[in-house]
Amino acid sequence: MTFVVKIGGDVVNNPELLNVALVRCASLAHPFVLVHGGGNVATSLAKELGVEQHLVDGRRVTDAHTLRIVVMAYAGQVNKDIVARLQALGVQCLGVTGADADLVRAHKRTHHEIDYGYVGDIDHVNVEVLAKFIELGLSVVVAPITHDGNGQLLNTNADTIAAEIAMAIVANGRACSLRYAFSYQGVMSNVEDPDSTISTIDSDKAIHLAEQGVVTKGMLPKLENATRAAEAGVDVRIQHAEMIGLDTGTLIT
Amino acid sequence: MTFVVKIGGDVVNNPELLNVALVRCASLAHPFVLVHGGGNVATSLAKELGVEQHLVDGRRVTDAHTLRIVVMAYAGQVNKDIVARLQALGVQCLGVTGADADLVRAHKRTHHEIDYGYVGDIDHVNVEVLAKFIELGLSVVVAPITHDGNGQLLNTNADTIAAEIAMAIVANGRACSLRYAFSYQGVMSNVEDPDSTISTIDSDKAIHLAEQGVVTKGMLPKLENATRAAEAGVDVRIQHAEMIGLDTGTLIT
Repeated sequence: MTFVVKIGGDVVNNPELLNVALVRCASLAHPFVLVHGGGNVATSLAKELGVEQHLVDGRRVTDAHTLRIVVMAYAGQVNKDIVARLQALGVQCLGVTGADADLVRAHKRTHHEIDYGYVGDIDHVNVEVLAKFIELGLSVVVAPITHDGNGQLLNTNADTIAAEIAMAIVANGRACSLRYAFSYQGVMSNVEDPDSTISTIDSDKAIHLAEQGVVTKGMLPKLENATRAAEAGVDVRIQHAEMIGLDTGTLIT
Repeated sequence: MTFVVKIGGDVVNNPELLNVALVRCASLAHPFVLVHGGGNVATSLAKELGVEQHLVDGRRVTDAHTLRIVVMAYAGQVNKDIVARLQALGVQCLGVTGADADLVRAHKRTHHEIDYGYVGDIDHVNVEVLAKFIELGLSVVVAPITHDGNGQLLNTNADTIAAEIAMAIVANGRACSLRYAFSYQGVMSNVEDPDSTISTIDSDKAIHLAEQGVVTKGMLPKLENATRAAEAGVDVRIQHAEMIGLDTGTLIT
């Protein structure tokens, strides 16, 4: 069983919770894949550099300046900090982007109305090379940057990268458990009430929750990725970062 | 024969020369190791962010702000740009720092007079994992950042990293050719005269050239690393980036 853990921006932004999440990952029995977002690191770097940020439907429009910023922030600062911390926890790990070892290849998104800029939609996960790293005992820490094979780096949603990697592992004949880890206990019917965690969601219920407005903006694409991975045979849970590896939170079926 | 190529800051700063250097590397018969400096990327990022830089004997004093900058610039921007370009040239490669796969472990430099800050002196190269990557057909692109094994990243001289990796490869029983590639034909007796390339330098001659003032500040530590590697059995050349892989430039014996 290979764990693919995605830690959200709210975990990256919180040093203590990040540390707990990494300790949880370090306690997993086998090498794992950890996909991280950037949290507010890119946003604050953009502010420091005076580069204005544009969001469309919660997605960052990535012009050339912003691409440079997300590469520095995600592949540089956040990725290497996590790698160094995991090494200190005794985890032999390797930090990568999708360009490294051609792990995740994508194409620049085309949209009839909005130009998202250097944003990548995934074409292919090199699951063979990922399996080799795992065989070598290497856990793999993935920054949400991909490439197009023609020298262009692309900004890519970390939830989607995690789902695509998990699905590729299953398609390659290995069991895979995908964990979307963040600072909530799971998908909640009422975010104010910690006891309102929904224990199980299938794709029908996901649509229902979206229609009812129970599931809101940030959670919608995550749930979409989660149900897609579950349909492909991945064991999927949305859970608190303190619980990585445990069977808590919301099971997606 | 494994090539360890170090490309200097003057190559990283010059997009055309960088491209030629990468094409030369792509033409090598086997997977290679490419160590890069940061050129002026870190300096200009520091300027953009308003972080003042201090140099002592040409070495950057690395406080916490500067460490963040060099990690973003070297491990983020420069490393991932090179990886994406090499992938476009058909080179299956992996960009790393010394923290990744615990490739280069170092300790924080202690000096009786100067506090260099987060600067690392190398303790150990994990040549076993490097050999595994090469066996997998992966060339390895190394940013000049190491770690101490306790979660601390460290800024480390790229020339020294290249020499230490080359020596570790030889100590592990494999032939290794180390190329210091930059924008000159080799070590010159007169930098103004392109025909003044010194064809061979041994350690006695290196000391002599330093005493005479023929070899100046930037070249001194490079020559020191080069002679140390040559003494350890590495085939070493200092040559033009356009000539990587060819037997040109200055042979160090």
